[in-house]
Amino acid sequence: MSGKPYYAPPPGPPPNDGSQASEDQEEDVENETEASHTRLISDIKDYLLTHGHLLKVVRFETPSRVPAVGVNVSCRPTPFPRRLFQHAMDLQPAMNELYIRAASDDEWLHSVLRPQIEGEPDGLVASLWDVWVKCREVGVVQEEVTLRQVEMNTFSVAGACHAEGVAGMHRWLMQREAAEMDDIKPLPHLGDLPADTNTSAIVSGLSTAHKLYQSQHPNDHSKCILMVVQPLNFNIADERPIEYGLFACYRCEWRDVLNRCHVGPSRELLYQPPASGKRKASKMFEVSVVYYRAGYDMEEYNSDGVKTRSMLELSRAIKCPGVKMHMVGMKSVQRALAEPGVVERFLPEARQAGEVQRTFLPMLPLDSSRQGLEARRLALDPETAVDYVLKPNLEGGGHNVFRADIPAYLSGIPEEEWERYILMRLITPPTNAEPGILLTSEEVYEGPVVSELGVLGFAMWRSMTPGNGRKDGGGEVEILENEAVGWTFKTKPRSVDEMSVVKGYGCFDCPLLT
Amino acid sequence: MSGKPYYAPPPGPPPNDGSQASEDQEEDVENETEASHTRLISDIKDYLLTHGHLLKVVRFETPSRVPAVGVNVSCRPTPFPRRLFQHAMDLQPAMNELYIRAASDDEWLHSVLRPQIEGEPDGLVASLWDVWVKCREVGVVQEEVTLRQVEMNTFSVAGACHAEGVAGMHRWLMQREAAEMDDIKPLPHLGDLPADTNTSAIVSGLSTAHKLYQSQHPNDHSKCILMVVQPLNFNIADERPIEYGLFACYRCEWRDVLNRCHVGPSRELLYQPPASGKRKASKMFEVSVVYYRAGYDMEEYNSDGVKTRSMLELSRAIKCPGVKMHMVGMKSVQRALAEPGVVERFLPEARQAGEVQRTFLPMLPLDSSRQGLEARRLALDPETAVDYVLKPNLEGGGHNVFRADIPAYLSGIPEEEWERYILMRLITPPTNAEPGILLTSEEVYEGPVVSELGVLGFAMWRSMTPGNGRKDGGGEVEILENEAVGWTFKTKPRSVDEMSVVKGYGCFDCPLLT
Repeated sequence: MSGKPYYAPPPGPPPNDGSQASEDQEEDVENETEASHTRLISDIKDYLLTHGHLLKVVRFETPSRVPAVGVNVSCRPTPFPRRLFQHAMDLQPAMNELYIRAASDDEWLHSVLRPQIEGEPDGLVASLWDVWVKCREVGVVQEEVTLRQVEMNTFSVAGACHAEGVAGMHRWLMQREAAEMDDIKPLPHLGDLPADTNTSAIVSGLSTAHKLYQSQHPNDHSKCILMVVQPLNFNIADERPIEYGLFACYRCEWRDVLNRCHVGPSRELLYQPPASGKRKASKMFEVSVVYYRAGYDMEEYNSDGVKTRSMLELSRAIKCPGVKMHMVGMKSVQRALAEPGVVERFLPEARQAGEVQRTFLPMLPLDSSRQGLEARRLALDPETAVDYVLKPNLEGGGHNVFRADIPAYLSGIPEEEWERYILMRLITPPTNAEPGILLTSEEVYEGPVVSELGVLGFAMWRSMTPGNGRKDGGGEVEILENEAVGWTFKTKPRSVDEMSVVKGYGCFDCPLLT
Repeated sequence: MSGKPYYAPPPGPPPNDGSQASEDQEEDVENETEASHTRLISDIKDYLLTHGHLLKVVRFETPSRVPAVGVNVSCRPTPFPRRLFQHAMDLQPAMNELYIRAASDDEWLHSVLRPQIEGEPDGLVASLWDVWVKCREVGVVQEEVTLRQVEMNTFSVAGACHAEGVAGMHRWLMQREAAEMDDIKPLPHLGDLPADTNTSAIVSGLSTAHKLYQSQHPNDHSKCILMVVQPLNFNIADERPIEYGLFACYRCEWRDVLNRCHVGPSRELLYQPPASGKRKASKMFEVSVVYYRAGYDMEEYNSDGVKTRSMLELSRAIKCPGVKMHMVGMKSVQRALAEPGVVERFLPEARQAGEVQRTFLPMLPLDSSRQGLEARRLALDPETAVDYVLKPNLEGGGHNVFRADIPAYLSGIPEEEWERYILMRLITPPTNAEPGILLTSEEVYEGPVVSELGVLGFAMWRSMTPGNGRKDGGGEVEILENEAVGWTFKTKPRSVDEMSVVKGYGCFDCPLLT
């Protein structure tokens, strides 16, 4: 999660500040609903500030200061069916397994990604595939660990720390509200707010991997976890809590990796932090786990970027996640997994294969296959396009084109580039019966809302092929750890298509299980 | 602690942002000192943001957002003699006792404050004294609890939460630095950073008072602590953590107290929070403890303000602190306590009376006494004025006039107002041998620094006079709790006179005990 800050304090005279409502309250004490509203929003603003659930306003950073503003949040927990929440959590291990097995099948993965690799030889997928081929030639030497979500994010999953923080905020608000009720029964709904311990789950997952590495490589080197990060990230409040939870975890900017790291004779990844205090140089650490919070933007893969990724992947450090798990997160792979029979192929023994299959939304390629030609027709016709979203054939969210914008967008780019997108029917999520209240960067929104649940999974596995590095890279895996460890929950105005916190629409929220 | 925000993001094009140093680093990897510096400042900015050690930029608050910036901090713990640190902590209970006993002696207190009460009948001291006289007439009905510092702040002590947070930051930085050292000996200096648990100490103190009240008034009312606060406070990060630590603590703005509170037939103070959620009204709470974070500015004592303070003081709630402990914090009282024999009078049995006496700095009144006339001469002569500071005869810090500014300032106000000030010789604190690095609102300061230690004490006591309300208000007290519970430590550039965090000079810091 990175990009331009969406908040800039307006120049000139200060805007209408939050005190207005407070003064109204003075004039109209009887209006308790208004007072309740004012109080709630003021409490939330302060809670976000005092708990560090903030985004940097990097544009206004000075040498000694960086301003920050709260993340978007929902002012009330939004109702969500308990059954579906539990189902999503229960399905997560099968989801993890599906992606692990798909990522371990080189032949299948290459067949899915081939159009992208060959169609865009300088593109992100081709770069990642090249890194993988190089690793395969040298031989794979390490386990992998990953953290992922139902929505197929396998790489640099953001939002986990904010989600936990906002869930905590809703617990605090509800606890207090309960204490103000006249009836004796304490905390009536607190059990309906699921607990969220994302940060400690990620910390614990990375620690587990770190300990595994330490036990496998008992040498004199001090070990550390390396968090590879983007520069000038305004969303550090979603990264730093993970670092604070680990004893030896260093942030290294993507562009500094080649300067600060090198690979030793046993393919150990060595990292030297900048000096601190009065010492001339820090000691060297051996990296146990590479935790990627950078390396997902095409712009990061110039020649140095490719070298960076290759060095990290070729090392014996545990990658979270490795390059193949990164590639398996591409939309084209998701589309291929959704095709009939594929889930069953990768999960022959899982009793949940059918249920996993049913969670996939149909996606259409925009290539020259029969299916692709049909998709092109749907996308170019304004009458049918309104039910679809056009997504770049990459991993992660963003850069989507919605509904009526699709025909003009496609017409504006060369036809040979259409293959880089997939077409997906927009789901029509149920609107909540009650209007929500959302604090966005622009306004206090009150009106109909829709929500989105994400599940955070943790898995660790190793290749079971001889020498731990079969030349074709495929084959059996042993899954060491596999569980659902947390969730994120976001809510947006009904009328907005994109659930983007970065763009200022989506708001962190907590489900109120019904 | 309140006032105008001292940070406003500049309008127009963004300033030179923090990335500059980062780019330099890229070009010049060998300069590890520079890299170390950049890393330290970046780490500190992020730590403050993610831990909520921030000030609101209230001027730029919008209905849905309020920007915030980090508090001023020192980048390195500043050396401070362990012996003096321990001495200050050891002396705190005697200090507490001195102020409790002085506050309990009406006759003495009135003789000290009379010039202010009579000289400025509409002033703050006169208003507070009137409140006290009213309470005395009705009869005192409750214990008092207070939190205070060596510097004679007995009311609304600010900075405790930030101090704890910044101490934690320095522990984290030092822990990590230690881990990067080549030698095995772990955490070499961590024992030299004293622990700071101010927030939990304040929470624990308020809870103790709350429980005492509950045990004395076992009725069916739910009890709560009422934190009386100023509106639009940019420093909520120094208040909210106390609220979060308590189960039932409500913030009520000074100007809302008369609307939200009333006194019941047994002089119980009743408070109704604004409605929350969908209920039309919250239930009523009985206030166990009034914790003042407002009510120290003269502007707050219009006729409603006086009614507010009177209602709170007349109620049976425990006040933290009561009006007399507020008045005993005035500079004129401090001056009177410093006079020979006074400490011994109030602490006849304390073996530390002499040590307490020695901590007082000589202060001179600017009245028409012989001492006062001598003080006037010193203050008006530019050659002698440079060694002095002119302080308003009030409680707390701020509004000081320094050195060469004094003669012109006094000439600019009517001579009859001079009595409202006291003259104090400026202490010349030892400059630290090593230059400090301070992150202030304006700059990264590097140069000579001086530090100031504050000690946070907690005490609870009750009047021992018959009926718990002797008509003259004076007399014996029983001290129930009395201890030093924490500290604050601030550092400023050597060349700046005022240790004001609000004005952007003073920086929160942690002593490195030597």
